[in-house]
Amino acid sequence: MATLVSDSLAKKNNDKASANSTAQVIGGHGTNSYSNNSSYQRLSVNIVTKKIEDAIMKNLDVETLSSTSNIFRVADFGCGVGSNTINSMQDLLQIVKKKYISQCPTSSQMPEFQVIFNDQFTNDFNTLFTYLPQDKQYLVASVPGSFHNQVLPKSSLHLAHCSYSLHWLSRLPKELRDERSPAWNKGKIHYTSAPPEVLMAYATQFAEDLDNFLSARGREMVSGGMIVIVGSSIPDGMPYSQVVNGIMFDCMGSILMDMVKTGSISEADVDAFNLPIYACPPGEFIEGVERNGLFSIEVIELMNPAPWLKGPIDIPVFVKHVRAAMEGMFSNHFPSKSIDELFDHLVLKLSDISQQLESCYRDGLQLFAILKRK
Amino acid sequence: MATLVSDSLAKKNNDKASANSTAQVIGGHGTNSYSNNSSYQRLSVNIVTKKIEDAIMKNLDVETLSSTSNIFRVADFGCGVGSNTINSMQDLLQIVKKKYISQCPTSSQMPEFQVIFNDQFTNDFNTLFTYLPQDKQYLVASVPGSFHNQVLPKSSLHLAHCSYSLHWLSRLPKELRDERSPAWNKGKIHYTSAPPEVLMAYATQFAEDLDNFLSARGREMVSGGMIVIVGSSIPDGMPYSQVVNGIMFDCMGSILMDMVKTGSISEADVDAFNLPIYACPPGEFIEGVERNGLFSIEVIELMNPAPWLKGPIDIPVFVKHVRAAMEGMFSNHFPSKSIDELFDHLVLKLSDISQQLESCYRDGLQLFAILKRK
Repeated sequence: MATLVSDSLAKKNNDKASANSTAQVIGGHGTNSYSNNSSYQRLSVNIVTKKIEDAIMKNLDVETLSSTSNIFRVADFGCGVGSNTINSMQDLLQIVKKKYISQCPTSSQMPEFQVIFNDQFTNDFNTLFTYLPQDKQYLVASVPGSFHNQVLPKSSLHLAHCSYSLHWLSRLPKELRDERSPAWNKGKIHYTSAPPEVLMAYATQFAEDLDNFLSARGREMVSGGMIVIVGSSIPDGMPYSQVVNGIMFDCMGSILMDMVKTGSISEADVDAFNLPIYACPPGEFIEGVERNGLFSIEVIELMNPAPWLKGPIDIPVFVKHVRAAMEGMFSNHFPSKSIDELFDHLVLKLSDISQQLESCYRDGLQLFAILKRK
Repeated sequence: MATLVSDSLAKKNNDKASANSTAQVIGGHGTNSYSNNSSYQRLSVNIVTKKIEDAIMKNLDVETLSSTSNIFRVADFGCGVGSNTINSMQDLLQIVKKKYISQCPTSSQMPEFQVIFNDQFTNDFNTLFTYLPQDKQYLVASVPGSFHNQVLPKSSLHLAHCSYSLHWLSRLPKELRDERSPAWNKGKIHYTSAPPEVLMAYATQFAEDLDNFLSARGREMVSGGMIVIVGSSIPDGMPYSQVVNGIMFDCMGSILMDMVKTGSISEADVDAFNLPIYACPPGEFIEGVERNGLFSIEVIELMNPAPWLKGPIDIPVFVKHVRAAMEGMFSNHFPSKSIDELFDHLVLKLSDISQQLESCYRDGLQLFAILKRK
């Protein structure tokens, strides 16, 4: 079950705005680093890979793509840091090569392959490169910059991958911090259990971000190219307080308010802090893609991100994963000495409600979508 | 005069072999970092920029290049870390845009521009990205890997830049460490003042590296694309002991041998250590390009890398620049506590011979070449 949460917090925000710097995974190889605390993510990826393979074998027309270019480019948007990133892209390449062999058995040779890693400027690309195998059979590039903007040359990209990144908002709606707005998010850090105006502010920002993402990819991708999107979602109409992430965000908010009472942090700091994370339900996602108009939807479904996970959670290990993904957001806003207190209390608080966590809804919390450039 | 030396030591080795790890500039923004100790390099670049402009205005056929692609790619091979790297590439882009306006005044629009930064996997790309201006008008990518191999897709590159990088050998010839070889470089750390067999071993390795570099660029570049090469050189036939770099390498060798006497380091360590740096004279360079056969030589000349530098050198500042560029090579081989001793003694030793340094040959020590893909 840990994957429900840690996956959806695994990748960092791709925006260059100020909100951006609040969403940073821990780089390097240290004890609390994301690269050493992302094993749950890899488990989840294996199931998705099979679905991607089915879609590529059925829908990606490599014969047409290779008739106009002798290079096939695959890009990971919001790549983050860690061996999972490299492995996912290598899995994708294997699938594309399989499709080439299947569709073009008489072709004299494979195209060249280039794998492109995109994330914001502050991503730890140095560490990411240390995970590249020495005997890799593909060219590599990293492309820094917000994926809400064009970052690659026009019509140069054939396959895009974006896993657990789109849920990071490019910025936080201003009204969340405006005392005069009905969307003022007082005493909370997320839209979970908040007034509907707060949810609406998040949803509106997500819709704008999705449109910018699709328009940017629309410029970069060749006609017939595909985007694989995997990410945090929720069934249409279900309140976020019914899922593990929501329950945890409520816990975090309530721990922070307790810390206000003991004087560790100020109430104004809590009021001003909001997690820039939105789990888009499929209905809104479909609407956004159709409104944008550049892509057709080839596949869309909600999945259980971790159907194999049964039984009790190891809460300390789980919180360690969450911390690796989220610590930067908190430490950029709250005094650094309060961070240990927050995560230590989170272990205790989640342990108190472990039964509630285990019995809550967990099935369709992962969106899997494949889009095709018209 | 400092530029004669610090320029030629400014960029790191681009090889993946073990020798590679001995040639590392200091990343980050610290006191001894290359990024904070490379102001001399920038001065040198300004004169070169004018020569590049002349060559591009005269020789680069952007009309033909833009007829086959709406993207113009410029790559810096052996980019290192620092604002000079970014500035040089922006200067190049300005020149190319000027040529577009001059050659295609009726064209509806400029192509897109992509700037590609290449250096070995261990380069500090994270820090390099922090120097990118927020309002940049071009796309960016970093491409890790040895520039002695193909690192970009075939026929994708229009303009290449390689400044003070080619002189780093991809590996050290084995015979330098072989007691039975006439090229055994006992008690020395470079071919300066060494037996002719040592010089020959260095020259042979450089020729192989140059050929690999040209063959790799030959695959990556479009026909008519150009390579700008700026780097360390010396007039044909002049011994390296007559120039500042050579004198300094001799000093370093002799300091290390003094440290053997005091027991700071072992003699075997000095015998096993050789600087992987070769300043190729123009005759050998021309021979290498012609033997490779993929490029024509449009321009080749020896320049004074710093004609404006007159009068006495500030030796402590100068050694600080040298240290920023070279410390990694020494600290990977010798005990870390011996590094301060080496550079402290270097300040003293160079101060003792400051008149010799100032009066030695300094004119034609920079190779400037422009090659064009056939």
